[in-house]
This record gives sequence, C-alpha cells and structure tokens, in this order.
Amino acid sequence: MIKVTVWNEYKHENPNREKRDEKAIACHPNGLHETVAEIVRELGEDKVSVRTAWLEQPEHGLTEEVLNDTDVLIWWGHMSHHLVDDAIVERVYNRVLDGMGLIALHSAHYSKIFKKLNGTTCSLKWRDGAYERIFTVKPAHPIARGIPEHFELGIEECYGEFFDIATPDDVIFQGWYDIGEVFRSGCTFTRGYGKIFYFQPGHETNYAFQNVYVRKIIQNAVEWCYSDVKRPYSDAPQIKTTLEAIRLENAEGDYLKHF
Amino acid sequence: MIKVTVWNEYKHENPNREKRDEKAIACHPNGLHETVAEIVRELGEDKVSVRTAWLEQPEHGLTEEVLNDTDVLIWWGHMSHHLVDDAIVERVYNRVLDGMGLIALHSAHYSKIFKKLNGTTCSLKWRDGAYERIFTVKPAHPIARGIPEHFELGIEECYGEFFDIATPDDVIFQGWYDIGEVFRSGCTFTRGYGKIFYFQPGHETNYAFQNVYVRKIIQNAVEWCYSDVKRPYSDAPQIKTTLEAIRLENAEGDYLKHF
Amino acid sequence: MIKVTVWNEYKHENPNREKRDEKAIACHPNGLHETVAEIVRELGEDKVSVRTAWLEQPEHGLTEEVLNDTDVLIWWGHMSHHLVDDAIVERVYNRVLDGMGLIALHSAHYSKIFKKLNGTTCSLKWRDGAYERIFTVKPAHPIARGIPEHFELGIEECYGEFFDIATPDDVIFQGWYDIGEVFRSGCTFTRGYGKIFYFQPGHETNYAFQNVYVRKIIQNAVEWCYSDVKRPYSDAPQIKTTLEAIRLENAEGDYLKHF
Amino acid sequence: MIKVTVWNEYKHENPNREKRDEKAIACHPNGLHETVAEIVRELGEDKVSVRTAWLEQPEHGLTEEVLNDTDVLIWWGHMSHHLVDDAIVERVYNRVLDGMGLIALHSAHYSKIFKKLNGTTCSLKWRDGAYERIFTVKPAHPIARGIPEHFELGIEECYGEFFDIATPDDVIFQGWYDIGEVFRSGCTFTRGYGKIFYFQPGHETNYAFQNVYVRKIIQNAVEWCYSDVKRPYSDAPQIKTTLEAIRLENAEGDYLKHF
Repeated sequence: MIKVTVWNEYKHENPNREKRDEKAIACHPNGLHETVAEIVRELGEDKVSVRTAWLEQPEHGLTEEVLNDTDVLIWWGHMSHHLVDDAIVERVYNRVLDGMGLIALHSAHYSKIFKKLNGTTCSLKWRDGAYERIFTVKPAHPIARGIPEHFELGIEECYGEFFDIATPDDVIFQGWYDIGEVFRSGCTFTRGYGKIFYFQPGHETNYAFQNVYVRKIIQNAVEWCYSDVKRPYSDAPQIKTTLEAIRLENAEGDYLKHF
Repeated sequence: MIKVTVWNEYKHENPNREKRDEKAIACHPNGLHETVAEIVRELGEDKVSVRTAWLEQPEHGLTEEVLNDTDVLIWWGHMSHHLVDDAIVERVYNRVLDGMGLIALHSAHYSKIFKKLNGTTCSLKWRDGAYERIFTVKPAHPIARGIPEHFELGIEECYGEFFDIATPDDVIFQGWYDIGEVFRSGCTFTRGYGKIFYFQPGHETNYAFQNVYVRKIIQNAVEWCYSDVKRPYSDAPQIKTTLEAIRLENAEGDYLKHF
Repeated sequence: MIKVTVWNEYKHENPNREKRDEKAIACHPNGLHETVAEIVRELGEDKVSVRTAWLEQPEHGLTEEVLNDTDVLIWWGHMSHHLVDDAIVERVYNRVLDGMGLIALHSAHYSKIFKKLNGTTCSLKWRDGAYERIFTVKPAHPIARGIPEHFELGIEECYGEFFDIATPDDVIFQGWYDIGEVFRSGCTFTRGYGKIFYFQPGHETNYAFQNVYVRKIIQNAVEWCYSDVKRPYSDAPQIKTTLEAIRLENAEGDYLKHF
Repeated sequence: MIKVTVWNEYKHENPNREKRDEKAIACHPNGLHETVAEIVRELGEDKVSVRTAWLEQPEHGLTEEVLNDTDVLIWWGHMSHHLVDDAIVERVYNRVLDGMGLIALHSAHYSKIFKKLNGTTCSLKWRDGAYERIFTVKPAHPIARGIPEHFELGIEECYGEFFDIATPDDVIFQGWYDIGEVFRSGCTFTRGYGKIFYFQPGHETNYAFQNVYVRKIIQNAVEWCYSDVKRPYSDAPQIKTTLEAIRLENAEGDYLKHF
C-alpha cells in the first residue's frame, strides 16, 4: 500500500477566492489536488491510499504526522511559492532524504522544496498556449512503461531551455513545442534515500491531466518513487571498526563461517 | 509472472567432466545454475517461473523459443566464453535491446554478450581468495532495497579497478578487499528497451550465493530488470509527419478536442 | 599539438563517381573531408595538424601508422558503412579505448565503429529538409563554450527520437525541428581512455558546416576529445599485491616516508 | 590566465590561536591556504594567478570584487562551517551558477556552500589515521590526466560511505582504506554554468598535499573547473518567439540565407 499525499497551492481554481480564474475552475472543479488525486486513485484501492493537502491549511496540511504517514508527496504550486513556510520546506526536505518520494508537477519547478533539492535556481523560459508533443527518450525506465515513442499533448504552457536544474539521474521525456522550443519534460533525481520525479505538463488552465499518457506517467511515477526503506541517518558518525576487528570477528574457519 | 532463465557454462562443477573441481562441486552440488535458480525461486511461485540452460545443450539451451519466453536472463560463465556461438550471442543481444533484462554475474564480465553490450574490453584485475565487504552507495535504487549501508561478504575472488566498462547508468555497490583493492561491484546499464545489472560476487569455489544480502540483491535485480514492454523496433524509418499534418489532425477546437 | 584525421566516405560528392550528387558537390567542392578539415584548421597551426583519409584508399587510409599518429579521429559516412572493413573497425576501436578521441558526425551514427562502441543499433528516425534549431542543455560543458542558449541551424536533415544509443555521459545539445521532432543532437561517451562526441548536423546537401556555431562546436570537441595519455592496457592481469606487502613497503615512519 | 582564490578557515594551524594544533602548524607553516596556493602556482605564472582569503577577514575575504575577479574558488573548512555568513554563502553560490569553478577539499564536504549546491546533508563516516590508496575509475576524465591506475596516499583521515551527496556527474577517484572502508574520493558536479570538484584528501595534520598525484589532481581540477563563459541569467523570462516569427525571419531562399 503506497500512501500518497497530493499537495496543491489551491489559488487559481479556488472558488472562494475573489481573484479566481474561471478557466482554471472549469478544468479543476474540485481543485487541482482532486484532479491529480483522481489519477493516483486509478491505481486501485489495494495499491494506494490518497489524501490531499493545501497551502491555507494549518502547517499547509503537512504536519509531522501527515508526512510521516506519506510515502510519495505530489507537489503543485505556482503563484505562492514564497508563502510556503521555510520550516515546512525543511520538514519535507528531511522526509525526502529519509526516503519519501517526491513528484513535482509543472510550475512546481520554482517551489522552494524543488530548488533546495536541486541546489540551483530551477529557472526556465515560458510562454502560455503552445502545442506540445512529448517524446520518450529512455524507454527502459519504469516511468516510461506503456508510453509510446511519442504522444500528442496538445495545448500546454511551453517551458523552454535552458532549464537550470542539477544534472538529472535520467531524462526520460523530451517536450517539443510548435513555437520552436524543447524541454527536458520528465527528469529523475535521487537525494539521500529519496527518489524525485519532475514532470512538466499540468498548467492550471489546460487539460494535460486528462491525457491518458500523462495519467499513466504520473501513476508509474508514484510506483517508482515509492520506497519501503527508511534511511538510518546519523550526523557524520565516527567509524569504530578497524581491520583487526573485522578479522577477529570473522577469524574462524578462514571467514567461511561468516555466511 | 516474471520468466527467468539462468544460464550457466557448467564446467568447473560438472561432475561428469574429467577436469572437474571438487571444491566447486561442493559449493554447487546441482550445478551453479541450480544454486542461482534456487535464489530466484525464493521470490515465490506467484512472482517468478525459473528455467535453466547451459553451454553444452543444443543452441546452448537458448533457442528462439526459450529466449522469446524469457523476461530476465541470468548469465554465469568463466573458462569457456569463447565457445559460446556468435549467432546465439547475437540472438541474446537482440532480445536485450527488445526489452529482456540481463543479469551478468561475476566472471560473466568477460562474456561475449556483456562485452558487446558495453562496447569495451570489460577487463579488470583479479586475485583469488581475498576478504570482501560490500558498500551501498546508491541506497535509493530499487536493487538496494533491504541492503544495509555495508555488509561482510567474506572470502571471495577479488576483482580490482580499472574495470573497463562503459559508463554505468548507476553504480549501486562498491566492493572493498583486504588486499588493497576496490571495485564497482554492482552496476546498471540500459541498452534499447533492456535493463542490465552486473554483480561481482559469485566465484565458483566460494559461498557468496549463500549470503543473505547477495541473495536479496539478485532477487531485487530480477524485479528491476523485468519489463512487460517490447520495443517497436524498425531499422531507421523515415518520418512521415509534417507540422502541417499535426496541425490539421488536431485542428478542431484549438487542439482541445485532442485530449 | 593535436593530430587530427578527418575520415570521409567520399561518395556523394566525389566528382569522379558516375552517381555523384551535384548538390553535394556544390556544398563540398573539395570533398566533405576538406570541408571539415578546414573547420579544424581554424584552431591554428600551433594547436592542430590535420590530415584526411577516405574509404577508397588502401586500408581506408587508416593504417596502423596513421592511427598511431592520430589524437582525434573525425568520422563521416552514410551509404557505404557496410564497405568498411571489419579489421579496420577493430583497429579504430582499439585506438579509441587506448585514448584516441572520436567525433562521429551526422549519418556516422550508423557507422560500424559507432555502433560497436555503443553496444546498440544506433537507429533513429529521419526526414530530409526540416528546419532545425539547436539548444544548449549543458552549458557548463567545455564543448558548449561560446555557444548561445540556442541557435538557428536552418534547413538540415531531421533526425528523430527514439535514438537507440547507450546512455550518454552527457547530452549537451538538443535539436528542435519544425516538422515536430526532437533529437539528442550532441552527446558524449567515454570508452576506456577514449572520449567520444556524437554531433547530429552535417547532411551532405546542406550547409550546416558553414554555420559559425557548428564550426565552434566541432573545434571545441576536438580540444575536449584530445588526450595525451595512453592507457596501460593488459588483458585481465592478476594482482600481485597483498595488504601485508603494502604495509611492509610503507612500514617506516608510520607510512609518513611515503610522501 | 586563470584567477584562483584559495579560501581557508585558518583555525587549526593559525599560530595566533590559543587552541592551535602544533601538528597542523608543522604541516602548514604558512597556513593551509598557502600550502594549497603553492600547488596551484606550480601551474606557472602564465597560466594562473593565485590569491588567498580566510574566515576572519572582513566578509571572509570574499567581497563582491574578489569573487567577480575569481575564476576558480578552492575551499577548505572544518570546525567553523557555522561561522560562515549566509550572505557570503549566497554570494559564492550565485557566482558558481554564473560559471565560477569550485573545488571543495576534504572536510569542506560539510561546508554550507557544498551542502547548498548538493541539496543533501553531505554526511559521511570518518576515522582519523587510516592508510589510503586512491584508484582512478574514470581515466578518460581531464582531472585524471597523468594519474596512474592507483597510487598510495598513505596515512590520511578515512572518510566512509554512505556519502550523502547528490548523484555526481562523474566519480573519477575511489578511496580504499586499510580499516575496511571505501569512498567516492573524487567527484564532479555541474550547477548552472559552474563546474564543481570534490576531493577527499587533505586532513590538516597529514601530508596529502605533498603527494605528487594529489598535487597534480588539484592542478588538473583548476584547469577543468575554469570557464571563460558567464551565464546570461534572467529569472524565468517569457519567450517572445513564435514559429511564425522564426519562419518570417528566415523566409528568404528557403532558409538557406540563414547560414
């Protein structure tokens, strides 16, 4: 059972906000977090349990209790990255290093947590409303399972290079845009015991999350990011062993008893 | 269900050979292939089905039929790499690119198939009978699941750097030897749709395969190497699409109907 | 002084061939090898010395003597890959592992030597006559020195993904094509002591080699691929050292004399 | 001309400190920064100019002026990482992303700047006074030029895995210690336009910096980290181009005039 928490800024499409974006509400009638949660739930009740959280909740909905009960955290944010509390970012950061998976969607490239884990600015170029195709350039990766050589995403916000990220472990997907741009649209990173996937689609006023392959990729990523291991962290411990100790400990029978 | 074929040279420990090695027979009373097959079977009958094959069988036991029915091939060979038929190597090679996983154990570093997939000599340094510890340097990798920061392997053949392999996708395990050597003991590669894992332990007269962590690593590797996707290969096909075609195809509703 | 050999198939643009391509001759009046050699010579006489070689010469112009006197080999071929002698391929292969740099241009993706070093088919998709832009996605790499975030290549043969290569060490350049394709246009690999750069531009009937940034990239690649070290190769040598030997050798003064 | 600044904490071996370590002073009679600066100066006056800076200077000696005039910054710190001002760390960080090289030596693994660039804790295990050998596992890398397959470092502080760093671009050197540990002793990273090299030797009371190969590696790293390009950074700029614009701009002569 993979415990997934979908975190959303919940501003553009929040019907209670004065400055709400009607187009975003049309795309995400129950909030973008519910749009994404629905994708994850398709993996089945025996495989995943899904909760949601958002910015305006106490501790942004990411209490110690919630995070300790989360295997994979999905993050979407855009206009309010600066309102996320540094103490909560630190908490998420530590959980990632301890083994929690993190999926950063679209404009989450500029979230505090993603920038902190990269050690870079995570800047990019952008333009709303381009036509996008996505290519699979590492088809052997588990996140690419069931994804064709390329698929049509249609209208999406264009993100362009140079994308100022740390060298990824793997670039799995490449985006092509009709306005003359390319982008490393699907990338993985590891930090400590945690696995991270960045995925570019998901603008608040487009329908990327309805695309069957986008859904499959997010589902694959949830499974790939999951780990049942928690790291045995300690702060720069001193080594107690010596070669003599190793040898004494394993002295009998020419070490053969050791097996 | 993962279909695994364990391939073995079956020379050192073959009781019917005149030049048989009694120590190797003691380690592998039913042949090294059975020692390894037993490890894989521990994954459970619902997860894996295991068959074995060896050099002296017709087509080395690797007929088209067998390979097409194999998801993950495990390879062990040592003294008779040169006796493996080039046509069979080509067949295995094509299956790997098509998505079959390959696990190369110990002296399989010098097998024709591993060298062909690397594009290098795969040479290394060696000395029999050293004491080895193995360190996990990429703990977030699925193959490292359940493996501690380091474990004692005990007496094993020492393999030393420089190990002349292609740049690995990931180095997961590092070996330390008391005679003053290090080795990239567990490495992954991808070629086409296939995933490859090289793992250094497994000398024919030692008991590495009885080590609980070695067993777990091989089991993890079987699961990681498995893929249910077969690549849609064709030989440098011409692209038929043009941007105009893409646009016409997706013309309605500002592309929105595309989802 | 970097000794560069530019190798060319020399078919399309060979004026002495009956089936010659007048458009290719117009692009490369002295042969494509001379077009490329001219680019390298711009590095200056104090930095490089350049020779050329082609398919129809004895031993394809790649005698032991020539290769031993070559630091960086540049390769262009297209329609006659199958006519390159396997023994010469083996010779080039061994020189690369020994430390010679290799730059494979455009359709050289399908050359025997490039496929052998990758351990894959190196297949791709293609279509003649698309408009291409090239993006720099690893600007810190020495080969990207002086290259802007992106530049316009103009009309070039489109190469499309999936490009069936080994996982590159680095992807430095990404191609974008107006017909809806992307490509890993500039990639590096290391094999043994040798550095390899693949670069996609360079179709025989286009003017990529006149582009100022393409020229600069090839010049940078020559410098990056160069090495003054020759590997001390031997075939799987046995290790003679033991820890005791190390200790005795360094016994005095608590090892401090060793420095 | 490469402008190098060697930064040192300058505590252990500072003769003016009450708690000074006489052994460290013996190793570094003019301060560890001078020991390292001397290594860099061996590259020759025509190649490098070297200045030093340390913690207790105003702005730790790393004023805007100094950093803007620095191509490669070498960092050594140990007991006083917490005393480095966050504003200065931010300044160094921005210069690295802009293209300044960074070489982090030994205990600088725990410096604020190295941790920030990794996005991890950079924790490790340690024990003073082990015997170390260093192996070259990526001999084709420019930093390995002139370094043998392995060399004896002698007595050095042992650093052990798991080393909690971001996935390195390259692991060039592996450390072996007689007390039963291994370490990724020489690693590279890129962040933005900047190149980073971490190198494990250099404990304040040992003589690693007198080792001829350690010296050569640091000299190679200075050359490799250097870049003459400054990134054209801007904060997530909007893309102005459209495909139509590209086409119009290049309309004449079927784009051919573009070259």
